Amino acid sequence: MSEPLAAGAVIGILGGGQLGRMLSVAAARLGYRCHIYDAAEHIPAGDVAHAVTRAAWDDAQALQEFADAVDLVSFEFENVPTQTIDLLSPHCPVLPGRNALAVAQDRLSEKTFLRDLGLPTAPFMPVDSLDSLEAAFDALGAPAILKTRRMGYDGKGQVRLESRADIAAAWAAMRGAPAILEGFVAFSQEISVIAARGLNGEVACYDPGENLHKSGILVETRVPARLGPSQRSDAVIMASRILNALDYVGVLGVEIFVSADGLVVNEIAPRVHNSGHWTQNGCAVDQFEQHIRAITGLPLGDGERHSDVVMENLIGDDLHRLPELLRAPNVAVHLYGKPEIRPGRKMGHVNRILPAR
Amino acid sequence: MSEPLAAGAVIGILGGGQLGRMLSVAAARLGYRCHIYDAAEHIPAGDVAHAVTRAAWDDAQALQEFADAVDLVSFEFENVPTQTIDLLSPHCPVLPGRNALAVAQDRLSEKTFLRDLGLPTAPFMPVDSLDSLEAAFDALGAPAILKTRRMGYDGKGQVRLESRADIAAAWAAMRGAPAILEGFVAFSQEISVIAARGLNGEVACYDPGENLHKSGILVETRVPARLGPSQRSDAVIMASRILNALDYVGVLGVEIFVSADGLVVNEIAPRVHNSGHWTQNGCAVDQFEQHIRAITGLPLGDGERHSDVVMENLIGDDLHRLPELLRAPNVAVHLYGKPEIRPGRKMGHVNRILPAR
Repeated sequence: MSEPLAAGAVIGILGGGQLGRMLSVAAARLGYRCHIYDAAEHIPAGDVAHAVTRAAWDDAQALQEFADAVDLVSFEFENVPTQTIDLLSPHCPVLPGRNALAVAQDRLSEKTFLRDLGLPTAPFMPVDSLDSLEAAFDALGAPAILKTRRMGYDGKGQVRLESRADIAAAWAAMRGAPAILEGFVAFSQEISVIAARGLNGEVACYDPGENLHKSGILVETRVPARLGPSQRSDAVIMASRILNALDYVGVLGVEIFVSADGLVVNEIAPRVHNSGHWTQNGCAVDQFEQHIRAITGLPLGDGERHSDVVMENLIGDDLHRLPELLRAPNVAVHLYGKPEIRPGRKMGHVNRILPAR
Repeated sequence: MSEPLAAGAVIGILGGGQLGRMLSVAAARLGYRCHIYDAAEHIPAGDVAHAVTRAAWDDAQALQEFADAVDLVSFEFENVPTQTIDLLSPHCPVLPGRNALAVAQDRLSEKTFLRDLGLPTAPFMPVDSLDSLEAAFDALGAPAILKTRRMGYDGKGQVRLESRADIAAAWAAMRGAPAILEGFVAFSQEISVIAARGLNGEVACYDPGENLHKSGILVETRVPARLGPSQRSDAVIMASRILNALDYVGVLGVEIFVSADGLVVNEIAPRVHNSGHWTQNGCAVDQFEQHIRAITGLPLGDGERHSDVVMENLIGDDLHRLPELLRAPNVAVHLYGKPEIRPGRKMGHVNRILPAR
């Protein structure tokens, strides 16, 4: 067992959105400094970071200098090109590793990985042509959801098919991108498990949260989820198996459907996750600090919850409710410092703190 | 009633120690950015700030540029020279104002202010010579404490006198600095009230915490303090009167002795206060965010506590207990990113979270 990363060390974070921002704050709380790398014009994490590099994901020179300036690299979103990781890896450790990223950023490899692990998933078939979509639809039945294999998030890149008549338009919407057709899962709830695995293989999970989506975007997570004890432990065991199979280091989010036939894994995110934001006000160690602890070799928090929480995302115009939310008792406000309100844009979130049941 | 400071605005903070660091994080959570100004070589707040200026407190050019770069200035320590405030004030608002700073940074004006307000204090007399110390000691009796009027903190600049024989050495220890002799208060506990007042005059207080000092340095604050309901409300009323009398805007810490004769105000700090760090894990709105809310014109949090907390400072070698503290359940760790452990130096703190009683 090696020593934890030394105090004062610099952690590089690929991606400077709200997740990078909250990772940077958590790292500082543990005595580390964060250097953010992002190609975007506005980098919210830059307001609370030690250093910022604004450069393209394929800028070998900038990546080399970034790698030389940091002791360790992690990332806040799963669409970091694996080529970026390949440019960084010779110069400094990257955690979680390339493998987890590669599995998670392609829906086909993700679903295949989960199925091979023996975990229940929605039925799925790869689609790379109109013909293969027709065949897949006939095999899986209606309703079904066609999704791009890559770069989809918050409901983007998805089309629902109710009948054969939808096939042509759905395929056209993919614009030729490789896709996957997923069969329908009749679920009563969607939950997520925020799980962490340390450098030494120790695993810790937070209690599952129950998610509410609108238009494909997460709007609310409640903890605890309405689950029986065996469902709760099954969900945590599923997350642990995924972590171990990937030899994962860091925090991972697992979205799970609760159906009449049992738990079905929907997707995994190899990073801190929106549905884990409640931990900021429900636990002594939140998911952001948990991720930093995992990748630096510090002991993991045990995931214990001191309060129940309802996390609500502030999306687009929701931000106009801020005056009322700032006045509400036991509500913790977390804004992301984004300069401009846009429809569907995550501007912040609030955690309503309730006594633990 | 004017509008709150706009999202994205820049708040200047004079002082970049751990308090400035935690203020910067809280400001970011509300969508603001912080620009830190400090003369020190290492600036812990710089790890989580939008910008940093390292310059002397009397550098008119640097202060002018700083004022031009920010929308509002506040401070994290009460020993900011009033001349610095005078250089900034023509260019941008400074909150809390010069008056609170001037009162609090001189023990004689502080005690005089409190007495004039009708609040109980220890008996005191100004001392500016050996003769005046002898006269003061004869008037106040033993034991008594001789303190420099300015720049004292964490027990520095203080000498205890048990008898007339101690007078000469005590005066010599002042090195000619103007001083104040304070009579002894036989107290059973020291508590503090962290109180806030907004731009519109609204006041909110957290529940008093009970403090434990060693060698003049705060080592622990427990919330709630062991107080009866009338003591608790008296303490909060005292803090409110101080805020209103100073026409104060921001968070203020009030240290109070609990004696057989009632509550006695010890001192006030015109800033966020070490004994308020428990709020980070006990309240939805912590003292740092409360200060930012107050100075920017946002509504104050109500000070409600969702959990009881024992806050423990990590001083000097205490940092070596970190591996054990990181493993302890329901313990939140907050480190300050200081590069070097020194005896008496505050390196961080932990909040032990307990169910609210």
